[in-house]
Amino acid sequence: MSKQTLDFWFEFASSYSYLSVMRIEALAREAKVTVVWRPFLLGPVFLSLGWNDSPFNIYPPKGRYMWRDLARLSGKYGLPFQVPSRFPRNGLLAARVALTGADQPWIGDFTRAVMQANFAQDREIAEPAVIEEILTRLNLPAAALLEQANSPENKQALRRQTEQAGELGLFGAPSFITPDGEVFWGNDRLEDALAWVKAHG
Amino acid sequence: MSKQTLDFWFEFASSYSYLSVMRIEALAREAKVTVVWRPFLLGPVFLSLGWNDSPFNIYPPKGRYMWRDLARLSGKYGLPFQVPSRFPRNGLLAARVALTGADQPWIGDFTRAVMQANFAQDREIAEPAVIEEILTRLNLPAAALLEQANSPENKQALRRQTEQAGELGLFGAPSFITPDGEVFWGNDRLEDALAWVKAHG
Repeated sequence: MSKQTLDFWFEFASSYSYLSVMRIEALAREAKVTVVWRPFLLGPVFLSLGWNDSPFNIYPPKGRYMWRDLARLSGKYGLPFQVPSRFPRNGLLAARVALTGADQPWIGDFTRAVMQANFAQDREIAEPAVIEEILTRLNLPAAALLEQANSPENKQALRRQTEQAGELGLFGAPSFITPDGEVFWGNDRLEDALAWVKAHG
Repeated sequence: MSKQTLDFWFEFASSYSYLSVMRIEALAREAKVTVVWRPFLLGPVFLSLGWNDSPFNIYPPKGRYMWRDLARLSGKYGLPFQVPSRFPRNGLLAARVALTGADQPWIGDFTRAVMQANFAQDREIAEPAVIEEILTRLNLPAAALLEQANSPENKQALRRQTEQAGELGLFGAPSFITPDGEVFWGNDRLEDALAWVKAHG
């Protein structure tokens, strides 16, 4: 049997991505599925749908609901949560760093730390100092990783990954894609996506 | 202890309302919660958000995803499903009939039958003949109910109920509102909504 994998498309600015980032590794381990981390940028995807901001800002009733829903779900999952004073935050630098480490053992820890900074500690993840501090706290070579993250090759790789999200028909985050091409959208489909991989390989 | 209830706001044209209409009575019975059926029209709510059609039609990638998601979820729940040849169908007459029977013992059977006509049998629920046939099949006085449904008082009552949906901050269907005012949106929140009622009354 080949190794079972699930592609996990997420964006550091996305509130529901926060919930899945915090949950996916434990659930995937239990299901014996390997997570393939796919950071991307929602901005260009939203622009292609005609939105120049998060739909949660464009449609205030949806936004009000989303924050309440997020607070309730965080409670249900036992996750810390605080409505961020700025939304959406710019997740570009964090995504570039995550892309350099997408297949490294620290990707889960780094991604969770950035997400918690944004959605539990109300910190400005667009600030290089915040990302640097997180990397240092994880005993990673912060300066070298930031340099690699900001290299022209890596910037181009993130642009390409974001284009690919559009080509795959993604329109929001988190999204999960199974090896046989099924797309599952939203934190509330994480369990279904893992079950699909188990059932269909 | 007072009787525990859950307000169930649904629209006959709404694909995810189909899933909840088919599931809610059994789940609510198990949870010992009484369903308060609240048919309403999404059209005016969508218009207030700037949409003159279903967002699933306005944003094609969301629409393509939704139909696949619906097929998968129907499979998971063991429900019949067929992509309707017209979407969204006009659920006005069905909603008017449902409003006349919202507190009647036949509301569940009627609502499920109309939803299955739309999403499992690809029938035109905007046609009075289809609604009449469903009522007759349920051994209900079809002609009298249709007359009542089309009375000025009932038409006005449905307009009022739809306005109320907007006032409550609803922006989609299905939505569930607990006695203490928590709003849950989407078929994937039905279980959470029932659990909330159980926990908070």
